[in-house]
Amino acid sequence: MNKPADIARADITRLSVGLGSRSYDIVIGPHLLEEIGARIASLRPGARVGIVTDAHVAERHLATVEASLKAAGLTSSAIVVAPGEGSKNFATFEHVIDELLGARIERRDLVLALGGGVIGDLSGFAAAALRRGVDFVQAPTSLLAQVDSSVGGKTGINSRHGKNLVGAFHQPILVLADTSVLDTLPLREFRSGYAEVAKYGLIDNAAFFAWLERKWKDVFAGGPARIEAIATSCAAKAAVVARDELETGDRALLNLGHTFGHALEAGAGFSQRLLHGEAVAIGMAQAFRFSAAQGLCSPDDAARVSVHLRAVGLPTRIADIPGELPDTDGLMRLIGQDKKVSRGALTFILARGIGQSFIARDVDPAAVRAFLDAERA
Amino acid sequence: MNKPADIARADITRLSVGLGSRSYDIVIGPHLLEEIGARIASLRPGARVGIVTDAHVAERHLATVEASLKAAGLTSSAIVVAPGEGSKNFATFEHVIDELLGARIERRDLVLALGGGVIGDLSGFAAAALRRGVDFVQAPTSLLAQVDSSVGGKTGINSRHGKNLVGAFHQPILVLADTSVLDTLPLREFRSGYAEVAKYGLIDNAAFFAWLERKWKDVFAGGPARIEAIATSCAAKAAVVARDELETGDRALLNLGHTFGHALEAGAGFSQRLLHGEAVAIGMAQAFRFSAAQGLCSPDDAARVSVHLRAVGLPTRIADIPGELPDTDGLMRLIGQDKKVSRGALTFILARGIGQSFIARDVDPAAVRAFLDAERA
Repeated sequence: MNKPADIARADITRLSVGLGSRSYDIVIGPHLLEEIGARIASLRPGARVGIVTDAHVAERHLATVEASLKAAGLTSSAIVVAPGEGSKNFATFEHVIDELLGARIERRDLVLALGGGVIGDLSGFAAAALRRGVDFVQAPTSLLAQVDSSVGGKTGINSRHGKNLVGAFHQPILVLADTSVLDTLPLREFRSGYAEVAKYGLIDNAAFFAWLERKWKDVFAGGPARIEAIATSCAAKAAVVARDELETGDRALLNLGHTFGHALEAGAGFSQRLLHGEAVAIGMAQAFRFSAAQGLCSPDDAARVSVHLRAVGLPTRIADIPGELPDTDGLMRLIGQDKKVSRGALTFILARGIGQSFIARDVDPAAVRAFLDAERA
Repeated sequence: MNKPADIARADITRLSVGLGSRSYDIVIGPHLLEEIGARIASLRPGARVGIVTDAHVAERHLATVEASLKAAGLTSSAIVVAPGEGSKNFATFEHVIDELLGARIERRDLVLALGGGVIGDLSGFAAAALRRGVDFVQAPTSLLAQVDSSVGGKTGINSRHGKNLVGAFHQPILVLADTSVLDTLPLREFRSGYAEVAKYGLIDNAAFFAWLERKWKDVFAGGPARIEAIATSCAAKAAVVARDELETGDRALLNLGHTFGHALEAGAGFSQRLLHGEAVAIGMAQAFRFSAAQGLCSPDDAARVSVHLRAVGLPTRIADIPGELPDTDGLMRLIGQDKKVSRGALTFILARGIGQSFIARDVDPAAVRAFLDAERA
């Protein structure tokens, strides 16, 4: 049923996220938006579809999606929000919920997230909360969303206290990663997503990291290497999520680079000054430098991480961020408010080498503070 | 572990809601707020407690609860919202979340709902969404909350489109129903809660309804009959929830009186003109009259429902509601927006007799419209 014969294609990769009765497929390949209607109709025939998207994505892809849904006999309504992280707030959450209710999206209908990570997180939380939960489909249109946020069911919005502090675990019923849409991404945004691709190598797949060191130009250029990088990333994430859906255990490894990164992103006001993937790139470089400073991994490995990230054009140091940032005290406060806090002790993802990351609980805040001071000196 | 020897008492009733690893106890009896600290500490030693309550309840019970938590070695912060259904909105939801984050409630900490149904629904949803889910404890202080909303995990807020349209299924880890606190409830509010008690008889327990017909004055007066009525109600709800947590099946029986009732409550603007239980009382009387009009149950049974509800002082007809209400068209629209809609057909809980309720799907909207016209003639 998930694999209608009429739309099976040789040029797509299909992965499954194994979560029992809530298992779902990730379909990766070119020109998938053009057949999204048939793919949704095969899962939920007759469903009403509430499309949540942003103004930029709507301009490029909404007509394609609406036409495909209509051709498959599905009714849809579009809710267009402002582009950018600023839409992950309570006011937009309320707006999206109200519009979905106005469109009479009922329990057996579904929400379609058409956009990047912001749209996926926002509309996934809206789908989780609407009538206490309706199904949703992710059609990620950024590299970041395709390899990271669209898979795994983490949804949410930001609070004035920090990023993603409010939300739900709500798994999609389908993820459609159309690799053609990435051709229209600005280079800076593609690079930002690439940081999460590199992350999967750094966590537990040294061979993939080495492959990226050799092939990253092909990944940026498009074609088979790009699809392979996305599929490898999604498969890595799907495996972790299937093992630990609610992040009680090693799903936390996916936060490599995110504890430092979130603090920097918050410090820069979640603005265009520092994109999420850029913050993660700096955070990963810092996690490896901090690991080296603690004698956990070799300085050569830490250097290799930075060299590769810089080669693709990503930042690796706080000094790479334009404009003012909080001082060390301010960053420590932002780190403390991060979700990965437990009773005042700090939890970081550290590494014993490339592809050898681990969850370090009870990291000494004084050591982190000293490291940040040294980083900024 | 759930039954610390030092606080086991003979005058309490303990029920269990069987939900596998998320099972929890409902503890019912007098003066439980005075020992809430020890009971929470036995479940979550060292947890930080974010107490959510309203100004009325805070005045009466907050000091007792704070002292009990402190005596058990637990740190707490109180968040006090305005009393009334109006607090089940997006703005208060945001406020509560922000205050809980400000109080540094982390993943292993918990939220304590101290109040009636509004507080339980609002703070339960906040607990569900905060950091994508922290534990919560219900300490219901109204009869309505003790017998209905505190058990079963339905949490949420209202939208301008209707009541409880936004929320989560989030089970508490403990429900403490202190029957002493009901002594300070206004009579009208106690009556409102009693409507939900009577509902359990009408759904599937004719013997309980007959017992209530004989004993209702003792239930209102307090003492053992009150505790028995609350325990019977909680046990009935717990059994339904254990069978059907997410309301995909017969949990919907609990909505007896709620489809008509919600429309009236919305029509009256969720105001003091019509309390929730009053709306449910009218809704149950209507569900039985509609069932009789459809030839499903005897007119005598329908009359018996109204006679008992009127005897305790509850309303049973639209004409009992003071002030203006929407016309039949307006009520039909409100019924259509109810969550229990499925693809345009209407779902009602109807009855073949007292204690013989059933889920009627595909109820003809024209029949409902004709019934409402006749009710108002």
